[in-house]
Amino acid sequence: MSATRSSYAVKSNPNPEILRRIASITGHLDASSFFEVVRAMEAGLPPERISYSGPGKRDSELERFVGCGGELVVEALDEIETVAAIAEGKGTRQRILLRINPDSIPKGFGASMSKKPSQFGVDEGQAAQVIARIQSLPSLDLTGFHIYAGSNCVQADAIIDNITNMARLFAESASVSGKPVRKLIFGAGFGLPYHDGQEALDVAAVRAGIAPALAEIASNPLLADAQKVLEIGRWIVGPCGALITSCLSRKESRGLQVAVCDAGFNTHLAACGMMGSVFQKNWPIFRLGPSERETEEYLLAGPLCTSIDTLARRITLPPLHKGDRIAVLMSGAYGLTASPDGFISHPAAREYLWTGAELQDITTTRRAEADAMLPGRE
Amino acid sequence: MSATRSSYAVKSNPNPEILRRIASITGHLDASSFFEVVRAMEAGLPPERISYSGPGKRDSELERFVGCGGELVVEALDEIETVAAIAEGKGTRQRILLRINPDSIPKGFGASMSKKPSQFGVDEGQAAQVIARIQSLPSLDLTGFHIYAGSNCVQADAIIDNITNMARLFAESASVSGKPVRKLIFGAGFGLPYHDGQEALDVAAVRAGIAPALAEIASNPLLADAQKVLEIGRWIVGPCGALITSCLSRKESRGLQVAVCDAGFNTHLAACGMMGSVFQKNWPIFRLGPSERETEEYLLAGPLCTSIDTLARRITLPPLHKGDRIAVLMSGAYGLTASPDGFISHPAAREYLWTGAELQDITTTRRAEADAMLPGRE
Repeated sequence: MSATRSSYAVKSNPNPEILRRIASITGHLDASSFFEVVRAMEAGLPPERISYSGPGKRDSELERFVGCGGELVVEALDEIETVAAIAEGKGTRQRILLRINPDSIPKGFGASMSKKPSQFGVDEGQAAQVIARIQSLPSLDLTGFHIYAGSNCVQADAIIDNITNMARLFAESASVSGKPVRKLIFGAGFGLPYHDGQEALDVAAVRAGIAPALAEIASNPLLADAQKVLEIGRWIVGPCGALITSCLSRKESRGLQVAVCDAGFNTHLAACGMMGSVFQKNWPIFRLGPSERETEEYLLAGPLCTSIDTLARRITLPPLHKGDRIAVLMSGAYGLTASPDGFISHPAAREYLWTGAELQDITTTRRAEADAMLPGRE
Repeated sequence: MSATRSSYAVKSNPNPEILRRIASITGHLDASSFFEVVRAMEAGLPPERISYSGPGKRDSELERFVGCGGELVVEALDEIETVAAIAEGKGTRQRILLRINPDSIPKGFGASMSKKPSQFGVDEGQAAQVIARIQSLPSLDLTGFHIYAGSNCVQADAIIDNITNMARLFAESASVSGKPVRKLIFGAGFGLPYHDGQEALDVAAVRAGIAPALAEIASNPLLADAQKVLEIGRWIVGPCGALITSCLSRKESRGLQVAVCDAGFNTHLAACGMMGSVFQKNWPIFRLGPSERETEEYLLAGPLCTSIDTLARRITLPPLHKGDRIAVLMSGAYGLTASPDGFISHPAAREYLWTGAELQDITTTRRAEADAMLPGRE
């Protein structure tokens, strides 16, 4: 059987110390921007263990990436033409994976990139034509295919259907290309139980459910030798991280207890219901300290001067006092780095890693680094 | 008649160069965090021209602010006790304004802080008791009152009703305190026409409509000498700014034209429908360049690897090609600085000021400055 591995999606948490540790386990990283490629290299991976995807790559970034040894996930015909021209100019042959956007996705995914017009990849119906174009360009080496159609799903059935559909599309695409495929990237979309009533994804059920699809891949001469990569981010780092905030002020307003915390949507956009959710649902939030029988209902507000800064609405917690620490769990992915941390200029959050032996300060000043390293800046 | 002035809300756009210019016109700034106070001072204003408001002030920040000469807008009883203790410890008397949260607000405000449990100020019904407590604390000097109940309203009638209600509450509060009031801060809530079908706020109608309320204030012995301050932010800087982005890739997907831009919700959270809106509505967006009769319908996507990164959905524009520039107007307030600019590590946006003579690069690296100056960092 061919190799299988996980690839960690840098975007879910790009902290360099976390990247370094995860890269040493997965041995493969998916970068969604050029600076994430730089970070992935700094984490100790050689370029051939890094794939660079994303619908919005700048020409200046492609110029720097092409020929470096990394693998490019291409998402549009105009991007393919640009990459081919750059590779030809450099006298190199660029390894690419074509991202295909399936026409369907099962219900149960938090965010979907399928069924509707999308910036991601080429539509399933266009794939054959695009594959033919790629194969006509000698400076491109079509290594394989990539599909990522939906994210944050906790339903095993939906994940199984989705991966089975990817396997079908991979087989069809291989058949169009007529060449053995060397790599297949499956976008996992494994979700987390953020809200009441949700349960953790049953990974054993997923493993069992996708076995027939994997068996078909194994029996397909064009796919049998392909490395199968599961691109995964949230599911790895999400449960490992918590936002710890303090209660700065406590009052009663119109019959409800209000606790103002020193972190709000500047630090955790998703928990505040502003990262793609239509309505805010409370995250798993706990007061640190000894457990108490008594509870009260709270509005947990952030420190910002805007009415939309609410960490939780009508959440039941033990009595809160000024100085109490509150933890928002499941916050290791798409937390701080996906939040507007400069808004209203509150102190920057710090990032700590608990190694089991000590609490290590792993705070980074992202932008300064990015500014120094990125191309095409005026 | 007593003095009237505007106070610019730093949070709406804290760029230092913009602050410096606006401060020289308004002569008063409202800071919503301690670092915004620092910025306001750096903009050239003496502390007595700066008010510091916000529901989440840290003790370490109050320690630094109390006694500096600035004015503190207090928002809760526990904050009042803390400020009194700090001022007493420093042997100073701190000027404070009490923020009162009205029980009602007219319809028409984009975001409201009234009617429901809120982190902002003390409920109208609690004001009398809190005023009495403040007056019992010799280290506090109750200078006046502050109300900010709703934001982003383009309906003159609603603005008039709201300001009239503030005037009523100010009169009631003054009557409770029994002392002449020196300052009244009216939170403007003046909105902008972001979406189709909205018209600019009729400011002349507002002026006429609030005349009776202002006349009542002028005839009230406790209020007649109060400086009246209109706290305003979005309405000043919003229309002056545009996000300029470029088309990086263009494709068709499921019957719709898709243009991928190099700016998305990392650069403009609000335009992407994620800053408090339940559903995304298109902002005023134009393609730069010569006008054309031909138009097409577009999905305008950002560069991020997430399906929620859409600058506009089904927007009609002239044909777009790679490299075309696109402008999102009305973006001078709550634009870049309210967005998760580090997410997925794309190049930081730059900020330019058009002075009429030249294009000046006024980009700042916010966090590095903030990190260096803020107290209470480990």
